[in-house]
Amino acid sequence: MFLEKLDWRYATKKMDPSKPVAEETVAKIVHAVRMAPTSSGVQPFELFVVRNAELREKLKDAAFGQSQLTDGSHLLVFAAWDNYSEERIDSVLQQVQQERGENEGMVAYYQRLKEMYLPRSQQENFEHASRQAYIALGFALAAAAELGVDSTPMEGFDPAKFDDLLGLSARGLKSVVILPLGYRDAGNDWLVSMKKVRKPQETFVTEIA
Amino acid sequence: MFLEKLDWRYATKKMDPSKPVAEETVAKIVHAVRMAPTSSGVQPFELFVVRNAELREKLKDAAFGQSQLTDGSHLLVFAAWDNYSEERIDSVLQQVQQERGENEGMVAYYQRLKEMYLPRSQQENFEHASRQAYIALGFALAAAAELGVDSTPMEGFDPAKFDDLLGLSARGLKSVVILPLGYRDAGNDWLVSMKKVRKPQETFVTEIA
Repeated sequence: MFLEKLDWRYATKKMDPSKPVAEETVAKIVHAVRMAPTSSGVQPFELFVVRNAELREKLKDAAFGQSQLTDGSHLLVFAAWDNYSEERIDSVLQQVQQERGENEGMVAYYQRLKEMYLPRSQQENFEHASRQAYIALGFALAAAAELGVDSTPMEGFDPAKFDDLLGLSARGLKSVVILPLGYRDAGNDWLVSMKKVRKPQETFVTEIA
Repeated sequence: MFLEKLDWRYATKKMDPSKPVAEETVAKIVHAVRMAPTSSGVQPFELFVVRNAELREKLKDAAFGQSQLTDGSHLLVFAAWDNYSEERIDSVLQQVQQERGENEGMVAYYQRLKEMYLPRSQQENFEHASRQAYIALGFALAAAAELGVDSTPMEGFDPAKFDDLLGLSARGLKSVVILPLGYRDAGNDWLVSMKKVRKPQETFVTEIA
């Protein structure tokens, strides 16, 4: 149960390099990412699953040396579309039509989407795409917690260096957030025993009855 | 199990107004939102839980008349901080110190955070805060699915009108995404029987062994 793991999970600071996450477990987390909903079903991002130890060493250097990148066994990199384009939207429409059949309403829907997105600035579209990747990050965190896998959501890395190391620019992608997967080394993690701090319900939530 | 509900959940188009979600169930979803991780633990957004039918009618008018806003029983509105500020970061630090004890490292950490955030543009900070709200949206979607509650993530609304109706500007907040909660009216929902469309694993995921 995901809901029973909300206190168990935490942004793991020290992972145990002797405990890799099983491939079939990683596959379940990746599947959750792929199934996450996105605005108009566009899925405007891609997921990179990095196992390669040498590459993870280089990525760690581009992430202020944070040890989870190499102590964990897998690194997820969420890379958002740098912009929306006619081609990209058409490709989504094409897949929808292949799987659900031809439908005039669908054609009109994605036509309106293009009319909305294409005149916008690159930055605005990239920000919108990034938000969708963060929904999927939430799904990855939830899936990992349910499976008892530790993970650490991180924005503390140099996106330009990541893009370079992963060859993202040529694919029209930009790295936005990363998630190492592994198992906690509880004896060496200063955060594991710390009280989880969240704003009180009364200040965080406004109920309008 | 959240992972068993990935196919079950969908962006519900028609909810059954005769089936409200029980308050204790909504409370679990709200709890998941509050427990979602955010960058540096800042939680730069607030959650509004709207039950009031009259207000939901008005919000529906500001959301292109989408019926889930009134056919569902609860509407979650995620409202991000319009900017980071010294006061807001200090308030986070204060709570961390109250709950974990005084700690010079923590003071330095949040000082660096202010040095990073405060020179940035309002828009950049708002976008960053919005992304954090989307992680929590992912948690809300996961929690609702696990509990068998239907939900519909929506960006299709007029944020300025929502901000006005909920009095957000005066609180330094901006509505970014909404999530009606309810139960599907399967007999009247055109989407429920449609094949769920997601990009194939091979194009969506890049494995780097």
